[in-house]
Amino acid sequence: MAKLLESIDSAIDLHSMSLAELEQVADEIREVLCGLLSIRTAHFASNLGVVELCLGLHSIFDFRRDRLIWDTGHQIYPHKLVTGRYQDFASIRTRGGLMGYPNPLESEYDLFMTGHAGCSVSTALGLKSGDDLCDEKNRKSVAVIGDGAFPSGIVFEALNNAGELSSDLLMILNDNRMSICPRVGSVARYLDRLRTNPFYTGLKTEVVRMLNHVPVFGDPAERMLAQIKEGVKAGLHGGMLFEELGIRYVGPIDGHDIGLLRKYLKMVQDQKGPILLHVVTEKGHGYQPAAQDPVFFHTPPAFENEQGKAKIISGSGTPAYTHFARDAIGDAMRRDERVTVMTAAMCQGNKLEPVREEFPDRFFDVGICESHAVAFAAGHAKVGLRPIVTIYSTFLQRSYDQIFQEVALQNLPVVFMMDRAGLAGPDGPTHHGVFDIGYMRVFPNVTFMAPGDGPELAKMLDFALQCEGPVAIRYPKASAAKLDLETQPIELGKSQVVRWGTDGAILGLGPMLEVAVQAADLLSEQGLNVAVINPRFVKPLDEELLEKVFNQCKFVVTAEEAALMGGFGGAVLELASDRGWDTRSMRRLGIPDQFIEHGDRTELLAEMGMSAEGIAAACRQLAGQTAEAV
Amino acid sequence: MAKLLESIDSAIDLHSMSLAELEQVADEIREVLCGLLSIRTAHFASNLGVVELCLGLHSIFDFRRDRLIWDTGHQIYPHKLVTGRYQDFASIRTRGGLMGYPNPLESEYDLFMTGHAGCSVSTALGLKSGDDLCDEKNRKSVAVIGDGAFPSGIVFEALNNAGELSSDLLMILNDNRMSICPRVGSVARYLDRLRTNPFYTGLKTEVVRMLNHVPVFGDPAERMLAQIKEGVKAGLHGGMLFEELGIRYVGPIDGHDIGLLRKYLKMVQDQKGPILLHVVTEKGHGYQPAAQDPVFFHTPPAFENEQGKAKIISGSGTPAYTHFARDAIGDAMRRDERVTVMTAAMCQGNKLEPVREEFPDRFFDVGICESHAVAFAAGHAKVGLRPIVTIYSTFLQRSYDQIFQEVALQNLPVVFMMDRAGLAGPDGPTHHGVFDIGYMRVFPNVTFMAPGDGPELAKMLDFALQCEGPVAIRYPKASAAKLDLETQPIELGKSQVVRWGTDGAILGLGPMLEVAVQAADLLSEQGLNVAVINPRFVKPLDEELLEKVFNQCKFVVTAEEAALMGGFGGAVLELASDRGWDTRSMRRLGIPDQFIEHGDRTELLAEMGMSAEGIAAACRQLAGQTAEAV
Repeated sequence: MAKLLESIDSAIDLHSMSLAELEQVADEIREVLCGLLSIRTAHFASNLGVVELCLGLHSIFDFRRDRLIWDTGHQIYPHKLVTGRYQDFASIRTRGGLMGYPNPLESEYDLFMTGHAGCSVSTALGLKSGDDLCDEKNRKSVAVIGDGAFPSGIVFEALNNAGELSSDLLMILNDNRMSICPRVGSVARYLDRLRTNPFYTGLKTEVVRMLNHVPVFGDPAERMLAQIKEGVKAGLHGGMLFEELGIRYVGPIDGHDIGLLRKYLKMVQDQKGPILLHVVTEKGHGYQPAAQDPVFFHTPPAFENEQGKAKIISGSGTPAYTHFARDAIGDAMRRDERVTVMTAAMCQGNKLEPVREEFPDRFFDVGICESHAVAFAAGHAKVGLRPIVTIYSTFLQRSYDQIFQEVALQNLPVVFMMDRAGLAGPDGPTHHGVFDIGYMRVFPNVTFMAPGDGPELAKMLDFALQCEGPVAIRYPKASAAKLDLETQPIELGKSQVVRWGTDGAILGLGPMLEVAVQAADLLSEQGLNVAVINPRFVKPLDEELLEKVFNQCKFVVTAEEAALMGGFGGAVLELASDRGWDTRSMRRLGIPDQFIEHGDRTELLAEMGMSAEGIAAACRQLAGQTAEAV
Repeated sequence: MAKLLESIDSAIDLHSMSLAELEQVADEIREVLCGLLSIRTAHFASNLGVVELCLGLHSIFDFRRDRLIWDTGHQIYPHKLVTGRYQDFASIRTRGGLMGYPNPLESEYDLFMTGHAGCSVSTALGLKSGDDLCDEKNRKSVAVIGDGAFPSGIVFEALNNAGELSSDLLMILNDNRMSICPRVGSVARYLDRLRTNPFYTGLKTEVVRMLNHVPVFGDPAERMLAQIKEGVKAGLHGGMLFEELGIRYVGPIDGHDIGLLRKYLKMVQDQKGPILLHVVTEKGHGYQPAAQDPVFFHTPPAFENEQGKAKIISGSGTPAYTHFARDAIGDAMRRDERVTVMTAAMCQGNKLEPVREEFPDRFFDVGICESHAVAFAAGHAKVGLRPIVTIYSTFLQRSYDQIFQEVALQNLPVVFMMDRAGLAGPDGPTHHGVFDIGYMRVFPNVTFMAPGDGPELAKMLDFALQCEGPVAIRYPKASAAKLDLETQPIELGKSQVVRWGTDGAILGLGPMLEVAVQAADLLSEQGLNVAVINPRFVKPLDEELLEKVFNQCKFVVTAEEAALMGGFGGAVLELASDRGWDTRSMRRLGIPDQFIEHGDRTELLAEMGMSAEGIAAACRQLAGQTAEAV
């Protein structure tokens, strides 16, 4: 019974609680989290890990005025539970319910919607700098950032600026030794050393104290001695990486000890200048199966908690596009030793573990460092390798400039596998990958494809690996369609006619192809003989087939799981305009010019007219118009 | 007389030269550089600074096989002079001549076209990793990166990965204490300490030697002693920031002493693992006026060298859009104390020095850290300030994901002043800012404008600062048009009719407005009465006026200094399609789907049909077609 938790109206209530009460609240939060996971898939292990940190923060600071940014905000659940959203909590990640990330529309305690990693230090510094300028200097600013997100380039950029501005910024490094997978890179190794070296954790204070007793005077030789002393103290002091940048380093401390957390938070609360507090937590803490396997329990499927063991409530067995991609990547690597793979800490999300196991030398997990991943891949391509960069559509935005300069401008054969291209369902707007057609097709030299079903994804990857320039392939977070498409080989800029008809034509891009086929079936029942085209290519477009379609079919509908603005339909319009084709009987279906909330993907698509019935309705309307016009 | 230099066919010739000969080559290179600057504007001070470093590198390594990346490649001139391009050197930065950046099409010695900062470490690491996989382990890989570029986030991402991979990578930190302006941030301060602290530069070796004589055995207490010893040594050793990341730090050394450079390069050449060699150079070295004022001499106007003094050969006096932007920013800051400004080391490029002087507290130069600049600005906006982010169109690509998540998704009032939007002339494809319409308009909540002349730019900024969401304003690297446009106030999504006519209409976006007016004049002489529209807004479009144009004008021409793919004309097509307007008599002029080389901006535009005559010709053709159709 969450007796204390349910009585918390606002986080300010935590200020008056005793340590024992706070510890009880922690237990109650864990109960609620385990309860939620028996209902649905959600972020789990990371939330279990920050329960005490969250309570520590809210019991010391007042984040109605002070500023708190949770980086990569999927660990926001405990925060939501103590900031007035306990009653609505069961709705999280469902349509119309709470968002699984911070959401300013839900609460004054949520400042930024954060789903992409690494920006918290920059925004928190901006908030602090802004508050200072507005004569609100007593407002504190806190960024909580995981060790997985920490190597993101923007964090370094923010540290560089924070050290210079000397603003009173508190950064809490939540070190659980994990991204979704165990994290990689030399920053990670450095944190390990900080944490495990007894030299750092115990002895240093004593030695520094001793050194402080060595007297120093003004003459040059003694100033030299003073410098040696400072050097020795610096060497003894942990956190040199941060100290060298003008950031005061404190820690590491146990992130599951609320009393200790409160002590340290009080201590750093009123100190001047930027401070990094290194807090060590355990991902999955307090629920043994999750602590033992935090990779699986990052976003586990719904499970029942049976006597401390998790029993998975099994879902559908249809393989997702992600699985087809994984298998195709593995096949390509077996066939061609020039093929290498880059992931930005998404080995698990892309189901690439077997590929990593089989080809450890050609598999590169660079951490949450998408910019580097792309530029590094360009280096591979330059020496004759065939790198595949597997990054979700929305996260690939983080390497936009490297796609431009290092890949497209050099015309290098890098293949971008853009998973989660389309609506990411319950993750919502930070994760929907709906802008990639618009942002990617603007670059010269890029070839851009979208498969109509699972097997076609594999064929497209094989084709991409034969190309001499950059290729992007987008596919959604969804079970792969099974269309039994004819095994027509992929040919540059050639679409596939799935069925022909002249009453109209539907161009169903990627996952919309299956829906287009269903729509055509519905229309057929009503006597309309509508062509269904699998465009395959967004760039270059199939001019020949499109000309035939515009000439022979009475109307044209394009359907894409992407932003309409600058999207596939827009590309078709541009071509039609260049060729002088009449587009008055063309209609584009896709994602309108707004950020789409979280919810069930199919449901969201249907509301935007991208169900079989929706597409059929659009076709009927166009057929009616053209009939009238005749 | 460049006797030695002109005899160098390939950089390999430097291997057989004596130190005295190399020093003579250095002198000869400086002569050539000073000679060039009497002809035209070019990158100058940075090239003077790397002469010896370039010669040192090429005289030790063989970069036909070894890999060399010059980061932010505008300091490539000495490299070009010794790699077979001496004879063509006078053509640099002119149409059809040598590019002012590395160019793989010119030479096997140039691997990547680099104009944006910070990616060299990633690509060099990728090259090394790739060569190792291809069993070409004896190929060395070298990245030369300036201290200005060093705080770019991607460098940190690359160091994180390099420390983990332990590849044999040589990074040369060319520390001249400058970006274009003196550089900022705590990394810069750290480098200053490394360079100036006598403790680092002299004494450390002695103390470390002494410590090495303290005996250490196996028992626990003594292991502790060993750890203290290591700690002390670490503290004494310079470069802890790098060493902590698993990068061996060597230096600092004098970057103008070829003998010393060669000694160190030989030393690190065959060492294992990633090494950072800290080389100290002077921007403008060897030409006193440039060394004294490296900001001015970064890309000075053409000048005559008169007895060691630079006499500027004055250019046109027409103020550029950049000046109007600067003045408008200053005015806004005077009027409204909520206005703050962010630049990413481009204070000089954006002519913002007077603004920085007048409002030091509200002016933030964050260094070459565009991602941070945007997220930091979002923090300012969140607390109620009105931040203006001034970043060139092409460099803003580096913060694409922050524009998405931190600004557009949160719908925060950040104003993006996108200078150099369009063709950047002699800088070429890395600097042309032609993709911004495509990449920016895809995001919901964004308002997007382009001014038709200088005064309108000021009005647009004022309007933008009144908006409650993100606003982007693009303007070119060009003298501002003087159109004496009526002072019609800016209204959201409203275009301006400059003149009306029904024989056709030209929508001249931004700098194309002036050309459209000229084209309409030409057409008028031939009896065609063509409307000229100043669209002002790319997003939202002026539906009302466009409907009138499509209904009443016989043809429509859009002209934009931007990529056609996904551009302004494409946006008009999308709207027309949504409204069912006939677009068969519409034609889009803009930049085709290819990377555009360097050259004179007006000349390049004319070749793409964007001169007055080109636009008029397009109109005549459409007029002829519509006449035939009638």
